[in-house]
Amino acid sequence: MPSVPLIEESAASPEVRAVFDDIKATRNTDWINNFWKALANDPATLHRTWESLKEVMAPGALDPLTKELIYLAVSVTNSCSYCMASHGASAKRLGMSKEMFAELIAVVGMANETNRLADGYRVPVDERFENLF
Amino acid sequence: MPSVPLIEESAASPEVRAVFDDIKATRNTDWINNFWKALANDPATLHRTWESLKEVMAPGALDPLTKELIYLAVSVTNSCSYCMASHGASAKRLGMSKEMFAELIAVVGMANETNRLADGYRVPVDERFENLF
Amino acid sequence: MPSVPLIEESAASPEVRAVFDDIKATRNTDWINNFWKALANDPATLHRTWESLKEVMAPGALDPLTKELIYLAVSVTNSCSYCMASHGASAKRLGMSKEMFAELIAVVGMANETNRLADGYRVPVDERFENLF
Amino acid sequence: MPSVPLIEESAASPEVRAVFDDIKATRNTDWINNFWKALANDPATLHRTWESLKEVMAPGALDPLTKELIYLAVSVTNSCSYCMASHGASAKRLGMSKEMFAELIAVVGMANETNRLADGYRVPVDERFENLF
Amino acid sequence: MPSVPLIEESAASPEVRAVFDDIKATRNTDWINNFWKALANDPATLHRTWESLKEVMAPGALDPLTKELIYLAVSVTNSCSYCMASHGASAKRLGMSKEMFAELIAVVGMANETNRLADGYRVPVDERFENLF
Amino acid sequence: MPSVPLIEESAASPEVRAVFDDIKATRNTDWINNFWKALANDPATLHRTWESLKEVMAPGALDPLTKELIYLAVSVTNSCSYCMASHGASAKRLGMSKEMFAELIAVVGMANETNRLADGYRVPVDERFENLF
Repeated sequence: MPSVPLIEESAASPEVRAVFDDIKATRNTDWINNFWKALANDPATLHRTWESLKEVMAPGALDPLTKELIYLAVSVTNSCSYCMASHGASAKRLGMSKEMFAELIAVVGMANETNRLADGYRVPVDERFENLF
Repeated sequence: MPSVPLIEESAASPEVRAVFDDIKATRNTDWINNFWKALANDPATLHRTWESLKEVMAPGALDPLTKELIYLAVSVTNSCSYCMASHGASAKRLGMSKEMFAELIAVVGMANETNRLADGYRVPVDERFENLF
Repeated sequence: MPSVPLIEESAASPEVRAVFDDIKATRNTDWINNFWKALANDPATLHRTWESLKEVMAPGALDPLTKELIYLAVSVTNSCSYCMASHGASAKRLGMSKEMFAELIAVVGMANETNRLADGYRVPVDERFENLF
Repeated sequence: MPSVPLIEESAASPEVRAVFDDIKATRNTDWINNFWKALANDPATLHRTWESLKEVMAPGALDPLTKELIYLAVSVTNSCSYCMASHGASAKRLGMSKEMFAELIAVVGMANETNRLADGYRVPVDERFENLF
Repeated sequence: MPSVPLIEESAASPEVRAVFDDIKATRNTDWINNFWKALANDPATLHRTWESLKEVMAPGALDPLTKELIYLAVSVTNSCSYCMASHGASAKRLGMSKEMFAELIAVVGMANETNRLADGYRVPVDERFENLF
Repeated sequence: MPSVPLIEESAASPEVRAVFDDIKATRNTDWINNFWKALANDPATLHRTWESLKEVMAPGALDPLTKELIYLAVSVTNSCSYCMASHGASAKRLGMSKEMFAELIAVVGMANETNRLADGYRVPVDERFENLF
C-alpha cells in the first residue's frame, strides 16, 4: 500500500498532466509508472524531480546506459526495491543484457564487501590518491 | 591510524609477497596501495579478495571503466573515503575525465534522492517491472 | 512472517502485560501495535525500549510532532517499512497534514542527495562550522 | 583533500558567480561555504542543486527550522560529516538551541535502534497503518 | 519476483551442478536454497561466492556459530530480508536459541543507536583507542 | 572537533558524576572515554544510554565477548569510526585476538557482499525460512 493514493492521468490537475505529458513525450511512451503517480500528490516535487532527472540522465560525458547502470548500482546498494525494478527496466531498454546485469551485481557486491574491509581496517588514504582532479 | 599495522613489501611473508607480485604484474605498476598492505595482516583474506577482485573487474560484458564507475558509485553511496579515493584514481587511470566524474556524482546524488522518495511514498512496483529477465 | 510469534495481550505474562497496559494508558488507546507484540518475546527489551521511547519522545525542547517528524525522516532514510508506517501514523495523529508529509519526504530526498554530493566531492568542513555549541 | 579544487569567487565563471550571488542574497550573507565551491566544478549541478534546495527548504507547511532539523537528522543517520556540520550551523542560526540539538540526536539514535528491532523481528505492518493518507 | 529466473537443479549446467553438489555435500543436506538458484544465472559469481563463503565461514579463530551471529547482525543492519531469513536459519541450525536471537537483536539495535550518537556528537577518537593491534 | 564540548569529570554535575562513577566501577577502570564525556552534555541521554548499554551487554544467553563482536560488526557496517575504535578496544580487552578480529572483518565484508547480491537478484525467501522461532 502506498503512503498516498496514486494519481491516475484521468484525475490529474493541469499542472500534473503537463509533467505526465512531458514524461511520455521524452520517453516516447504512452505509459506513466507508479513513481510519478505517487509524486503527483505533491506537484512541486513531481515537477522538480522530473526536471532534475531529465537533466541529470541526459547524454553528456557519460552515455545514458552508463548512467542507468550507475543508478541501478546505487539502488541495489540502498536496497530500494522499486528503484531496482524501474531502473533495471530502464537499463534493459537502453541495452543492458542479462550478462551485463549479472556483472553489475557482482561489482556492486564486491564494492560493498571491500568498502567494509577498508573501513574495518581503517586504512589510511595513500598520499598519491589525495587529489583526484 | 589503521586497526592493524600496514605490512610493507620488505616485511611480507612469501605468501603475501606472491599476492603483491601478482597485483603489481596485473596492474603493470611497482606500487602497492595501503588497502593491500592492511589486508596482508590476514593472508587468506588478502589472497581471496585479490583473486575475487581480479575476476570481477576483468573485461566482460561490461568494460573495465564502466566497472570502476559502478564501484565508485557504490563507494560514494557508502561514504567509504578510502574506496572513493582509490577507485576514483583507478577510474581516472582508465579514462574517467573530470566531466565524467562530475556526472557520476550527479547521478549518484539523484539516485539517493529518488530511492528515498520511492521508499517514503511506499510506491508499489508496477506489474510490468516485475520480471527483469 | 515475523521472526518470532506475536504475543497477544491474552497470552501475555504479567511482566509483558504491565508494559502493554502502560503503552495503552500513555497513548490513551486500547490497542497494541505489532511492534510491541513482537518485542514481547523478549520482556527485558520490551520494557527497556518502551521506557526509553517514552522518555525520548516526551515533550521537551522539541514538541512531540517535531520529534515524530524526525523519527519518520530517519525511518525513510533507513527504508524501514514498518517504522515508516507506524511513525507516519503517529505523526498524523499529532497533526501532520498531507502537505507536511510531502514536504518532509522532499527534504529527506534532498538531504540524501546532498549528503552524497558532499561525500563524493570530499568537501572539507569550513572552519566556521567546526564548533556547533 | 577534496576530490576537485574548490572554486573561489574570484575565479568563478559568470554562470557560477550568478549562483554564488543568489546564495549570498538569499541567505543575507557575504560568505560562500565549501560545498558550493566544490559543486562549482560542475556548474549545471551547482545551479540545479541550489535551485532545488531553495525550493525545498522554503517555508511551506513546515517551517524552515523544522526542515533543517529533518535535514540534520538524515545527515546524522548517513554519517555525513560535512552535512552535519553545515546543517547543524543552519539549524542553529534558525533557532536550534543546544537542548533541541541534544533531543534531536536522542530521537535519531532511538529511531535507528527501533528501525533495526522492527526489521530484525520482521514485524508485519498492522492493517490500520496501511494507508497513511 | 526475482530479477532473473531461479535455476532448478534439474535445469542446471554441469558447472552449476558441480557447485550445487558441493553445497549439498558441505552442508550435509539435499536441498538448495533460492539464493544459489538465483546466482546460478551467473555461474562465475555462483562459483566464486560459494568458494569464498565456504572459506570465510569455516571454523577458525571464531567458531561457525559466532560467525553466523555476526553475519545475521550485519544482515539486520542492512535490512536484507532474504539474508536475515537464511542466516537466521543457519544460526539456529548451529545452536542459536530464541534467547540468543533476542539478545543479538538487542545488541544490534543498541549498536545502531550509539553509532548515531557518536557520529551526531562527532566524538573524537580517544588516543588510547587509536591502535587496535 | 566534537559538536559539543567534552565534559571532563572535574566539571561534571553530580548527576553526570554519578553515571561516570558507575561506568568506572562497572568497568573496573579509572578512565572515562570521550563518548560519555560528549553525552554528558545531555544528562538524561547519558543516564539512559549507560543504563541500557549495561543491561544489553551483560552476560546472558550470549557471552560478553560475542556481544562485543556483534557490536563491532554493526559499527563496521555503519562505518562509525569512533565505535569501531572503542568497541574494537572493548572486544580486545575481553579476549579478541588479532586472528579473531581478522575473521570478523572477513565475515562482515562477505555479509555486506551477499546482502547486495540477494537484494540485487530480488531473491524470494524460501518457504522453509519463513518462521525462525
